[in-house]
Amino acid sequence: MKNLLDHIHSPSDLRALNQKDLPQLAKALRAFIIDIVATKEGHLGASLGVVELTIALHYVFNTPEDLLVWDVGHQAYGHKILTGRKSLFHTNRQLHGISGFPKRDESDYDTFGVGHSSTSISAALGMAIASQLKGEHRHHVAIIGDASIASGMAFEGLNHAGVTDANLLVILNDNAIGIDPSVGALKQYLTNVKKGTEKQDTIFEALNFDYSGPIDGHDLNALISELERLKTVKGPKFLHVITTKGKGLKQAEENQVTYHAPGKFDSLTGELIVKSASSLTKFQDVFGLTLVELAKQNPKIVGITPAMPTGSSLKYMMDQMPDRAFDVGIAEQHAVTLSAGMATQGMVVFCNIYSTFLQRAYDQVIHDVALQNLPVIFCLDRAGLVGEDGATHHGVFDLAYLRCIPNLIIVAPRDEIELRNMMYTAQLGLEHPIAIRYPRGYGAIADWKQPFKKLDIGKGEVLKPGKDIAVLTVGFIAENAKKAISEMSDPQRIAHYDLRFIKPMDEALLHDIFKTFKYIVTIEDGTVKGGFGTSILEFAAEQRYHLPIKVLGVPDLFIEQGTVAQLQKLCKLDAEYITKTLEAALLEIENH
Amino acid sequence: MKNLLDHIHSPSDLRALNQKDLPQLAKALRAFIIDIVATKEGHLGASLGVVELTIALHYVFNTPEDLLVWDVGHQAYGHKILTGRKSLFHTNRQLHGISGFPKRDESDYDTFGVGHSSTSISAALGMAIASQLKGEHRHHVAIIGDASIASGMAFEGLNHAGVTDANLLVILNDNAIGIDPSVGALKQYLTNVKKGTEKQDTIFEALNFDYSGPIDGHDLNALISELERLKTVKGPKFLHVITTKGKGLKQAEENQVTYHAPGKFDSLTGELIVKSASSLTKFQDVFGLTLVELAKQNPKIVGITPAMPTGSSLKYMMDQMPDRAFDVGIAEQHAVTLSAGMATQGMVVFCNIYSTFLQRAYDQVIHDVALQNLPVIFCLDRAGLVGEDGATHHGVFDLAYLRCIPNLIIVAPRDEIELRNMMYTAQLGLEHPIAIRYPRGYGAIADWKQPFKKLDIGKGEVLKPGKDIAVLTVGFIAENAKKAISEMSDPQRIAHYDLRFIKPMDEALLHDIFKTFKYIVTIEDGTVKGGFGTSILEFAAEQRYHLPIKVLGVPDLFIEQGTVAQLQKLCKLDAEYITKTLEAALLEIENH
Repeated sequence: MKNLLDHIHSPSDLRALNQKDLPQLAKALRAFIIDIVATKEGHLGASLGVVELTIALHYVFNTPEDLLVWDVGHQAYGHKILTGRKSLFHTNRQLHGISGFPKRDESDYDTFGVGHSSTSISAALGMAIASQLKGEHRHHVAIIGDASIASGMAFEGLNHAGVTDANLLVILNDNAIGIDPSVGALKQYLTNVKKGTEKQDTIFEALNFDYSGPIDGHDLNALISELERLKTVKGPKFLHVITTKGKGLKQAEENQVTYHAPGKFDSLTGELIVKSASSLTKFQDVFGLTLVELAKQNPKIVGITPAMPTGSSLKYMMDQMPDRAFDVGIAEQHAVTLSAGMATQGMVVFCNIYSTFLQRAYDQVIHDVALQNLPVIFCLDRAGLVGEDGATHHGVFDLAYLRCIPNLIIVAPRDEIELRNMMYTAQLGLEHPIAIRYPRGYGAIADWKQPFKKLDIGKGEVLKPGKDIAVLTVGFIAENAKKAISEMSDPQRIAHYDLRFIKPMDEALLHDIFKTFKYIVTIEDGTVKGGFGTSILEFAAEQRYHLPIKVLGVPDLFIEQGTVAQLQKLCKLDAEYITKTLEAALLEIENH
Repeated sequence: MKNLLDHIHSPSDLRALNQKDLPQLAKALRAFIIDIVATKEGHLGASLGVVELTIALHYVFNTPEDLLVWDVGHQAYGHKILTGRKSLFHTNRQLHGISGFPKRDESDYDTFGVGHSSTSISAALGMAIASQLKGEHRHHVAIIGDASIASGMAFEGLNHAGVTDANLLVILNDNAIGIDPSVGALKQYLTNVKKGTEKQDTIFEALNFDYSGPIDGHDLNALISELERLKTVKGPKFLHVITTKGKGLKQAEENQVTYHAPGKFDSLTGELIVKSASSLTKFQDVFGLTLVELAKQNPKIVGITPAMPTGSSLKYMMDQMPDRAFDVGIAEQHAVTLSAGMATQGMVVFCNIYSTFLQRAYDQVIHDVALQNLPVIFCLDRAGLVGEDGATHHGVFDLAYLRCIPNLIIVAPRDEIELRNMMYTAQLGLEHPIAIRYPRGYGAIADWKQPFKKLDIGKGEVLKPGKDIAVLTVGFIAENAKKAISEMSDPQRIAHYDLRFIKPMDEALLHDIFKTFKYIVTIEDGTVKGGFGTSILEFAAEQRYHLPIKVLGVPDLFIEQGTVAQLQKLCKLDAEYITKTLEAALLEIENH
């Protein structure tokens, strides 16, 4: 059965097939995806849901002359496999392997790099207008899910496209779920359209699109004939396609949230391969469980997530206190300003956003929260290097882009207990907004559930005394520093400080440090351009300290995918490199 | 006639009036706004358009218990005057005066600070949900224009509100114009609704709002009875109101773009008071005229603005090459990713966005442009301190938030000729995206239209040699530095370098500088946290130079309104302060 797939080296091979053979190809493609993802891990459900749509698109359109833009890109595995990357697919999401998302460097068929959602309509419209200006007759197709199309940016693209005569086809891949189930009025509306209780999709018609659908996204013949017809329709057009996320693997269809990215599983039965239970807890669960604990005590607490209830673990609060915890969909801008609005009325708002997605709401943090000095509590999940999701998802810019915002407190808890205590402290009532930044994945402390302790805002602490060099860290990267110091020939010469707060700085502690030591090393899992280390340089310049200061952090490059450990090594943030740096610094001190 | 207004010290006075007297009050309020704005300048048209709506809202709702959120805020002058700020209104937009926008610090009636558009629905929904949780029975009203509601963020707010039962009223103030005429499919649709050629506003009904309208926004009785009725409707509701921007002043109605913020004019006739013609040109016009010049030579050039054709002067190109210059509406996110999409197809895209509004598209700059290394040319207008628009509009964060983005070139032309040459150089073809940052208003060179010259990327230049101190500037602030140096007792001791490029840095030049001088002073019209001066600190630390470096820039505070000169003084960026700093530095050198 897989033989058919073995003969597809590019979409032109696919287009040479008989249409009646395509269902067989779909079966083989689906099996191939399941087989590889079962052992190599990755995003499963989204790609299974668009197997037929992917085949139909490459069958009908003359790719790569015609341009397909996949929104987000979780669903593009089939596209990758059919466009010459079948033999590489086992390297998916690995260091130096192929990316888990479409990526321009990787293939001519990947017309636009994605990862964050809701960019496809704007990008495809830009391509369509360019083709028009160049007098080229290509087709331009944006494939976007129902969760992504509800984001404001997608609306902006539709609103513009509707007044052009660009050759743009927007395909709504409607499976009623993003990573978590879709939410919002538009989702309800689409559901009514599917049920037939609502007239056709008048919203898209009102925006001037030639509308068709809804059609069954698993019916290859229906898809192909409708796409063929749409090729002849001029101007912006919209096709509403109904699919099932996880299609073809029973468990994935039935447990769509779990099978979005299920980890390893049995490719035949679909059963998850249970990892041996860790004694440790993810920072995400520390956040989610602590928030419930605090919210039970403090009735003013509310929780907000833009479409990441499971990923952020806000789900614990949503389940227990549904009227006080809100999934607002992929709407980071709205999430932040909604938080600001609530804060004006005295609510204590925990707004949880992945660091990389807060980039989507940067203006709202400045203009709606910080300028008004509203004490919103931002919990920035997945800060630092995130691993296999790669360049689009690393949360490495936040310290730099937040540090320039007046009024904002920025803190990076070193461990689970500090995360808890920071959350506890923040909800007691601060005079400023605060961003609490923590990494993806497991912490290092088994018994993190300790009684709450109030932390002093802007106060760091010494983790280890020392004689010659002061190592300054913020956040969980302290673990690497500890390890590095412990492996030195003479650890007594190295002091280790956890500054905790990037802003405001612990100036008293810094004066002590600069007066005591001969050399400073700063370490952070964020960019070296304008981040924590830079703030130490600013302090030193202002206070006229002239010690050598070595800033370790993520270099000024986009960092690819890999395990966090691999990427830390790549960025020279691993314990081994830190040890070397410290040994070299000791030599330098001696030679002076 | 004005007497009626003289008795309104707060909305409760207004509510004590007879409804039949309200048209008289409207007349007086309109006259008062015209009188003051005619001499004190400010935003005129928007507030004239909502005189009746403003009165009706405060008449029907129990402000400030009921919460009104004005979107953008240009239209809130009537609101300010009726809520106790009549006697202060002549200080509008002046240093230490009242703000040109609603501002929480200023009045309990200003429930949410605005300036940037499309935040009102999210903010008001946050307030409405908070009231619900607290068991309070308030009304919550967002008043939003047709240009603002087309922005993605507003859609996100509507999409969320539609699935709540929050007591939220969204009033669409539809005058078919923002600062420039509204654009987009939604605008066309609303026009059809008004003309009756389209069924009622099904888009808003589809999003689950209880819809009413369109009604005449200048008919006080109609407004009041409809608002009274809506007070009794539960859940999210939507009122479509038709108004005329500039209502009541003939010229303002007929020339809505000009009279958005007309400068001084005759309050009786409406005639503009023509300023004596300047021999100088605004940076905006240098951009707009140069772009046309370049676009005539280079057919690949396209221009994009999110809703600022007049303000940015992209209008010149839109008028002459309408198929190659695009106003996409208030949609910064879309503007940037549309640019990226065009760039993938080889177009040379000039995307002009005000510095403060690029905050709205930060993720798109990172994720869609820089990560893919697409050579989009960003022209960042109104960078630095912008003057009377105040804290919401200063473009002072851009250097800090852009500097951490890999691949991006950042340059600040010193004058009009450099702006031209940078634009010329960029369209020749760069290997990276670039941000060209320039200020609002007039330059200093009369004959700026010089033949184009290609600039070397990453190269600065010496403006003046000197012996002891090197002053490093980027951008137009060089003028202040020049003046400061010329006023010193011994200018020969001071060298002045224009680094031009914030990124990449001119490392060769910096090595020279650090090896030659005893003291460095950096000057920029952006934040001192992470900006240009900071980049010099990073260079010095990395290269182990231990000179004193003094960083002058905008302090880590939100800066209020005032003239640019006043604000530069406030920020210690005026020539006088720079002179003092340099004299003090000379003393310090001598004492060493």
